[in-house]
Amino acid sequence: MKPEERPPAVVVQAGDLRQFIRDVLVAAGVPPDKAQLVADPLVASSLRGVDSHGVQLLPHYLGQIERGEVNPLTEGRVLSENGACLVYDAEHGLGQVTAPVCCRHAVRLALQYGLSMVVAREANHFGAAAYWGQAISREGLIGIVMCDASMQVPPWQGREARLGTNPICVSVPHPEGEGWLLDMATTTAAYGKLEQALLRGEKTIPYGWAVDREGVPTTDLEEALKGLLMPLGGYKGTGLAMMVEILTGVLAGGPVYGTQVTGVRHRGRPMRCNHTFMAIDVRRFLPLEQFYQRMEAWIRDVKSAAPAKGYHEVLVAGDPERRFEERRRREGIPIVAGHWEPLVRLARRYGVPLPPSRTVA
Amino acid sequence: MKPEERPPAVVVQAGDLRQFIRDVLVAAGVPPDKAQLVADPLVASSLRGVDSHGVQLLPHYLGQIERGEVNPLTEGRVLSENGACLVYDAEHGLGQVTAPVCCRHAVRLALQYGLSMVVAREANHFGAAAYWGQAISREGLIGIVMCDASMQVPPWQGREARLGTNPICVSVPHPEGEGWLLDMATTTAAYGKLEQALLRGEKTIPYGWAVDREGVPTTDLEEALKGLLMPLGGYKGTGLAMMVEILTGVLAGGPVYGTQVTGVRHRGRPMRCNHTFMAIDVRRFLPLEQFYQRMEAWIRDVKSAAPAKGYHEVLVAGDPERRFEERRRREGIPIVAGHWEPLVRLARRYGVPLPPSRTVA
Repeated sequence: MKPEERPPAVVVQAGDLRQFIRDVLVAAGVPPDKAQLVADPLVASSLRGVDSHGVQLLPHYLGQIERGEVNPLTEGRVLSENGACLVYDAEHGLGQVTAPVCCRHAVRLALQYGLSMVVAREANHFGAAAYWGQAISREGLIGIVMCDASMQVPPWQGREARLGTNPICVSVPHPEGEGWLLDMATTTAAYGKLEQALLRGEKTIPYGWAVDREGVPTTDLEEALKGLLMPLGGYKGTGLAMMVEILTGVLAGGPVYGTQVTGVRHRGRPMRCNHTFMAIDVRRFLPLEQFYQRMEAWIRDVKSAAPAKGYHEVLVAGDPERRFEERRRREGIPIVAGHWEPLVRLARRYGVPLPPSRTVA
Repeated sequence: MKPEERPPAVVVQAGDLRQFIRDVLVAAGVPPDKAQLVADPLVASSLRGVDSHGVQLLPHYLGQIERGEVNPLTEGRVLSENGACLVYDAEHGLGQVTAPVCCRHAVRLALQYGLSMVVAREANHFGAAAYWGQAISREGLIGIVMCDASMQVPPWQGREARLGTNPICVSVPHPEGEGWLLDMATTTAAYGKLEQALLRGEKTIPYGWAVDREGVPTTDLEEALKGLLMPLGGYKGTGLAMMVEILTGVLAGGPVYGTQVTGVRHRGRPMRCNHTFMAIDVRRFLPLEQFYQRMEAWIRDVKSAAPAKGYHEVLVAGDPERRFEERRRREGIPIVAGHWEPLVRLARRYGVPLPPSRTVA
């Protein structure tokens, strides 16, 4: 495609985008309540500037539904509940449909025992882990969410993928709803960042994002796309990714884990990933009000550090996304051409009107 | 000191070193049973090649005892137990004395509820977190251990320290005692690594270990020693360090946390750090035997990745330390001059015989 033929980037309002996602999913056979469950987290991620886990995932989800790799009708079922521990069979349901059920179990068990751990197997992509961490922390509990993912990452010292980006999310309760919120892949960067760099036409990526085909770190995007994502900081990132796999896939006890999980971009078989939801009831340790005060005073203290050369302030986990969200709620969600075009195709395919959009120069 | 005057490095057998540590501590007023509790983990770390957390800590511990910053007589007390959650007051006791009590509570509560979380405040240095993770995993539970530490690390984008190296340890049960075992600081490197580089007379360190006084990453050891340790991979390391502080110091609810914790090398006030011990009962999810099989098959699979250029095999968490231990059990523990000399002074000061040692050419 020549440059002048490339569809321009657009800006869409969050509510319109939510409606569009729901309409497309319903047209594809997803029940309306479940379609809503998928639309909300995707738009939430787009609002927060986490585009890799936002609306750009929709075409992939629809591909999975069309090919029968996802069962849009199930919300899964409890396999076992044993004290504060629960094993869930997601039955290949939509990740955003099974995850809230697991969150509710995690909250219920943590309120009963003080903390809890819910592991789900035979699951699908649930968008950004942050959304589920927040679902737990909104109940006054610390939410810890992890999932495994398809092999895109070599173990340190290796050149062949054996691990996923295996994210870790920790969300802390806050009197106004959203508090300190960490959501990080155990690679230096998520794969979506490479895709975005490609869509932006960039040639290089920062050191540490990826390794080439020989397992050697590279800053060349083309080499990186032929190679693999790099574990965060080398062997420690591998350790964290393996920790996530142990606490999700190995404990979940299903027929698949680790190397057998596929991704949202794979075709021809169900994803079969594993999710883990932990909840910690802060009130078992100290009064919630005191926890809030301690968090606030301490974060203020962390942010009081003089900025490093080249920066003008210190940010903590959740700050950048909160700023994105404030702005995008006001100004709308920009969608780059490479992500808008698949949505246009979806609208056509399912006979659903595109959301109102404003073209960006 | 001229090079020829530098005391040579020596090799000491583990049992002899253990006896020496115990003797010195007893001479300093530590009850024999508690002295043994300190000697075992220090020698275990030295055996595993984790010299930063081995016998080199002994002189620091003794300084703390002499100055009254550590109370060698207490093993702390339970402040509250609430479901699977327990808050412990370590009462400034020796870290290696209070930690095993906390581990026993964590194991007891996890066996009762499925998982558990014990947070200890007013605590001291407990050596390597790995030792306590293993104490839990030896009972067939997954052990997760964290602690906060004195400020040596700037938050990402900052140039002033606000965080500790805040390690995370995960130890997984194994039929032969020691399984997959991650023990990592949330900086790229521990401070002990800088000290060791200095003792070895090195001028440079790897990129990513430290930042200079302006908060900019540096490979110059002298600049690094004037600067600060760097969070693992930048903002993600800051996120992990903050996660640890939330799950230790903030939840522990004591009068100090985060920026008020001091280190084992600080003088004049108690360390007041915080420890967290979590235990997960694998059997609540799947039979232990099945867990062992899954771990073994999966680790074999991870290790089957072709090595990257420059390496001849893939290692996973715990492998390097296990190799060190096999060798050092056989050949003894080498102690560099800079760490041996303080032990010689301790022997003289407390009138305790030095352990038999073999001088290394």
